[in-house]
Amino acid sequence: MTITERAQCAKQSSLLLSAADTGLKNRALRAVAEALRDKADIILAANAQDLARAQADSLAAPLLKRLAFDRAKIDGAIAGIESLISLPDPVGETLSATELDQGLELYKISCPIGVIGVIFESRPDALVQISCLCLKSGNSVLLKGGSEALHTNRALADIIAAATAACGIPDGWIQLLESRADVGDMLALDQLIDLIIPRGSNEFVQYIMNNSSIPVLGHADGICHVYVDEEADIDMAVQVTVDSKTQYVAVCNAAETLLVHSRIADRFLPKLAAAMSGHGVELRGCSRTAAIIPVQPATDQDWKTEYLDAILAIKIVDSLDAAVAHINTYGSGHTDAIITADTEHARRFMNLVDSGNVFWNCSTRFSDGFRYGLGAEVGISTNKIHARGPVGLEGLLIYKWKLLGQGHTVADYGSTKKFTHRPLKRPCPV
Amino acid sequence: MTITERAQCAKQSSLLLSAADTGLKNRALRAVAEALRDKADIILAANAQDLARAQADSLAAPLLKRLAFDRAKIDGAIAGIESLISLPDPVGETLSATELDQGLELYKISCPIGVIGVIFESRPDALVQISCLCLKSGNSVLLKGGSEALHTNRALADIIAAATAACGIPDGWIQLLESRADVGDMLALDQLIDLIIPRGSNEFVQYIMNNSSIPVLGHADGICHVYVDEEADIDMAVQVTVDSKTQYVAVCNAAETLLVHSRIADRFLPKLAAAMSGHGVELRGCSRTAAIIPVQPATDQDWKTEYLDAILAIKIVDSLDAAVAHINTYGSGHTDAIITADTEHARRFMNLVDSGNVFWNCSTRFSDGFRYGLGAEVGISTNKIHARGPVGLEGLLIYKWKLLGQGHTVADYGSTKKFTHRPLKRPCPV
Repeated sequence: MTITERAQCAKQSSLLLSAADTGLKNRALRAVAEALRDKADIILAANAQDLARAQADSLAAPLLKRLAFDRAKIDGAIAGIESLISLPDPVGETLSATELDQGLELYKISCPIGVIGVIFESRPDALVQISCLCLKSGNSVLLKGGSEALHTNRALADIIAAATAACGIPDGWIQLLESRADVGDMLALDQLIDLIIPRGSNEFVQYIMNNSSIPVLGHADGICHVYVDEEADIDMAVQVTVDSKTQYVAVCNAAETLLVHSRIADRFLPKLAAAMSGHGVELRGCSRTAAIIPVQPATDQDWKTEYLDAILAIKIVDSLDAAVAHINTYGSGHTDAIITADTEHARRFMNLVDSGNVFWNCSTRFSDGFRYGLGAEVGISTNKIHARGPVGLEGLLIYKWKLLGQGHTVADYGSTKKFTHRPLKRPCPV
Repeated sequence: MTITERAQCAKQSSLLLSAADTGLKNRALRAVAEALRDKADIILAANAQDLARAQADSLAAPLLKRLAFDRAKIDGAIAGIESLISLPDPVGETLSATELDQGLELYKISCPIGVIGVIFESRPDALVQISCLCLKSGNSVLLKGGSEALHTNRALADIIAAATAACGIPDGWIQLLESRADVGDMLALDQLIDLIIPRGSNEFVQYIMNNSSIPVLGHADGICHVYVDEEADIDMAVQVTVDSKTQYVAVCNAAETLLVHSRIADRFLPKLAAAMSGHGVELRGCSRTAAIIPVQPATDQDWKTEYLDAILAIKIVDSLDAAVAHINTYGSGHTDAIITADTEHARRFMNLVDSGNVFWNCSTRFSDGFRYGLGAEVGISTNKIHARGPVGLEGLLIYKWKLLGQGHTVADYGSTKKFTHRPLKRPCPV
């Protein structure tokens, strides 16, 4: 099948899947969990093939670790599915209900978006997680995984497709794309695909955003800031900055720039420098920072850079508003934290910083769907519409308006009839 | 100022406006209402200039009517503002609250999107309505109105800008663009403009959608269907079809195609034809329709056409599912109605038709923000993400995640600490 035919097939399935009842979807999820357990040997054999090729190709150790899909990962995937089954069905919820006039009732009802295209990195567990989130939310999904994981992804997609089809889920709701050319084809299918969620490098996500008229949900940059306010507790500021920078440097929610109020810089920066040197972090700073602690000089380019590495840029600012202005100029709208003991300062910072996640006295590393309690996540969005921050089930939903009448016509309004617009307290009967 | 400078100015204002409190925004809205009343003469004089030019240019009568902005329209605009003032502030609402761990609390808080670009047709009342919706929701707005309304739009934008600035609303939140070239420039400003809402012809909206990487909210086509089920009450079906088609033919929510179940066609179509002939509607039909009533032959092109005129295409189908398939193939995801006395048929139709608005036993013409009780509307969306159907205040909002800690670091989780993910019942304290 061509990519267009696969997308058509996914679209057709999505129309039926959108009306699938909760029991059917949960039975299908349970069948997937059982099939993963029963067919573990097939998965492990496929993964061994991928790992052998990756080792032959001398893939870096962190990539090999992400690619590995062992019994523990299978158990993790199954546990994830079990927890997804226990969540309420997000589809068909009555979001609002209004009587427009006697016998004319308007309901706003949650429903799936339709067909989601997801492009993900080498981790095969992402395939299970994303496809199960799509199934629970009633969406079809086109998946493109990393080529290193080809055999593992194929095995997983086949198992999921077979297990769900056997339960009565419409065939074709899950489609695995395998080549980079497939991605290019996919970007043109704006009549069939409703949303693209790309996960990967900055350049890759930017490329997707610039080359499709399909809406894209995701983030390119993760330039996160910690701002140490003049009213900060210095030990807390050190502790949170160290965690934000060093707990895992290669991820989007790690801090890249530290902003420090000039009135606290003298006391704070030496302690911070001592703590950071223990973690092997290279410090770069503005000239005022350099007057207090030893740093490499930072240029304008540093404020715009997502290092994804053990490097921290430091700038001294003279006010909270200057910190906010810096973040709104150089940040990426991802996650930014203030350390302060002053409630008003925290409020002002969190209201004025234009980012999806704004934190007070805690590490930027908390910006994550699991930590937020969303269950699994399909990605983190720096978009300004639809969904922002970590995106779980909810971001895969939209709504439709259902209007129930008894032969009502518009011609009567304006003359004989008037709208009541009375809120109703009941769920939609159909 | 260049368009880029204007957009930068709007962006700067939006960052402050997002934190404006409810009292300030309502005082500013009241000041706008008063200024419209006090400066009615200036508005009327400007409108007279536009009308004179439009008459000299021999503009069609319906366009002249839309362009006219008289005392009654000013009163209408003021009444609209009063009702907007009475609505609760949609910004700063706590949408969810979760304790992640002791002293670590996550809040999802509604906030403005930022900078909205709106391109609207000749009606100057749209300028007042849209800019006031943006102000109430804390968004800056770039407005491009029809060139016929140049003087009226200028007068209105100046009055609104001055009245709101005098109350302390950040300068520059409202920007009027005046030329078609400005629109082209605007489409490239994806770093400054967060959402574009185009209102106008199909081709124009499609052009905007294809020529910007800024998200676009709106609709190109409005190909709305009425499906008369085998279980329909025939008189009701005639009445609703006539209203859907004829109550106002030139609008997006008027019906263009009628689908009729073959088991009811013999009894229904002659009555429908008689009623439609009274309204001067040209009927086009499939061959099976032509065997029952006199119609022009319909081709495949008819099913894809938004007539915006007194023409109705008719097709006989053999099942509800065939009707659904027709709508999902040829429709535009706008508004589609079923006429039936059977609840199960209604449920199946409304769940399977993939449109923003699905109606049971009532006219497609109800698909409208005022009729839905949303207050004013900025447009109707056929998008699959963010907002669907008539879009009022709510579509101008997004959310941010606020996380409040006490020095919490991620390094502790996984080892010593566990997440509690306990729902909280309180609004965000900051």
